[in-house]
Amino acid sequence: MRFMQTLADAWQRHDSLVCVGLDPELGKLPAHLKGRPDAVFEFCAAIVDATADLACAFKPQIAHFAALRAEDTLERLIAHVHARHPGVPVILDAKRGDIGSTAQHYVTEAFERFGADAVTLNPYMGRDSIAPFLERADKGVILLCRTSNPGGADFQALDCGGEPLYLRVAETVARDWNGHGNCALVCGATWPEELGQVRTRVGDMPLLVPGIGAQGGDVAAVLKHGLTANHTGLMINSSRGILYAGSGEDFASAARAAAQELRDSINALRH
Amino acid sequence: MRFMQTLADAWQRHDSLVCVGLDPELGKLPAHLKGRPDAVFEFCAAIVDATADLACAFKPQIAHFAALRAEDTLERLIAHVHARHPGVPVILDAKRGDIGSTAQHYVTEAFERFGADAVTLNPYMGRDSIAPFLERADKGVILLCRTSNPGGADFQALDCGGEPLYLRVAETVARDWNGHGNCALVCGATWPEELGQVRTRVGDMPLLVPGIGAQGGDVAAVLKHGLTANHTGLMINSSRGILYAGSGEDFASAARAAAQELRDSINALRH
Repeated sequence: MRFMQTLADAWQRHDSLVCVGLDPELGKLPAHLKGRPDAVFEFCAAIVDATADLACAFKPQIAHFAALRAEDTLERLIAHVHARHPGVPVILDAKRGDIGSTAQHYVTEAFERFGADAVTLNPYMGRDSIAPFLERADKGVILLCRTSNPGGADFQALDCGGEPLYLRVAETVARDWNGHGNCALVCGATWPEELGQVRTRVGDMPLLVPGIGAQGGDVAAVLKHGLTANHTGLMINSSRGILYAGSGEDFASAARAAAQELRDSINALRH
Repeated sequence: MRFMQTLADAWQRHDSLVCVGLDPELGKLPAHLKGRPDAVFEFCAAIVDATADLACAFKPQIAHFAALRAEDTLERLIAHVHARHPGVPVILDAKRGDIGSTAQHYVTEAFERFGADAVTLNPYMGRDSIAPFLERADKGVILLCRTSNPGGADFQALDCGGEPLYLRVAETVARDWNGHGNCALVCGATWPEELGQVRTRVGDMPLLVPGIGAQGGDVAAVLKHGLTANHTGLMINSSRGILYAGSGEDFASAARAAAQELRDSINALRH
């Protein structure tokens, strides 16, 4: 099934806008898992199983696996999601981008090797660097737009002929790149008004929203500015706040409680 | 030794501005290597050994390995360069970029896991996404500026308050990010006048120049606009033109001949 349809179904079926970020850090794993040969997989799979019915998507961040030489773990983790929770799409957070002949290899990495349903990409190199992804109508193509980090303003907020670069990116994606209807944008929760400007330009295009929790983004402001007419349109990501909600043997149930609290607090504001 | 010093020494000792790009494609390997269990390593290592004394750097492109599930091959290849040709730095062409807490994992990936001397990065997310790399004064930090591909103009050429985005990137890197003197920029050979504009803004900062050969960039124009006062300052990349110069059992000597021809044609114009 197409990523966009899977996402829309998950929003409805799980009544959730929560995207669970999977950013494993060896130093933060529960003590009873540390040192076990497959600790990262065990940890992430337990989080997945405990939160799947509360999530609209899972988002593993690839650097956390690459730094550990654990690409095979990431492959198995994504396969686990597909096998056990086939209604929850997997977004590979990789922020790739390269010239066309190389972009095809990144397509292979994301969709064939890892089996992701969607991937995050960096738009700086322009259309032909994204084209091989756009052609995959079944897959989600999620472009960085206004990122949540402090340096997000360095270039994204530069005035480009009367409007900031991130709005030029949003308009270009909505107008020129979305022929297959498979595009989405990354807009950080730390800039809710900018997120609202993006929403006004891109119709119902889904927005992936990092930056709540540790980064300080305001959920209420995100909902106010970002919801679509049917009260969806957002994938509100939480990584650390869910993954490391607990540090004992009950880490998975602590993660479930954190995901449920986030889902319910969002729903109290949007319904 | 610091990347910048290793690079400067290689420019002089090998009398070469040629950067050899390592972009292995299974379908293009010489027939006698196809199907062998370690074919990609054998191919790349042979190219490295045949061209090292003609090169100022090697640049493996990581997607070509990731698409093959061959990160271990890339690790061994970079270790091979360091062991056999310690004077030639290795640039990991990865174009990474993410928020600070994740950027640290990409630092680990590039410099600890793969042992690269430098890495290419995407500046779109701004300073804090690059800061963990900048702090590594021994390593090279090579930011995308004006890329060689057709879509490079989509955003990089947008007018940002009287000058294009790529010049804002160049100025920001030169002025604010280069405190350790470890920055360089990617400027495509397909836009030699823009490359010249960058040169006038960044002093002697090294420029990594893709886009000659298959992409059609003009070496003479690159040299005219990009050389520094001491007739260096450029890493002119060739990947396919060297790697696939031959397709038989003599592929390594064909690659050597292609690298030598490129080096000599550059030197005839710059000396």
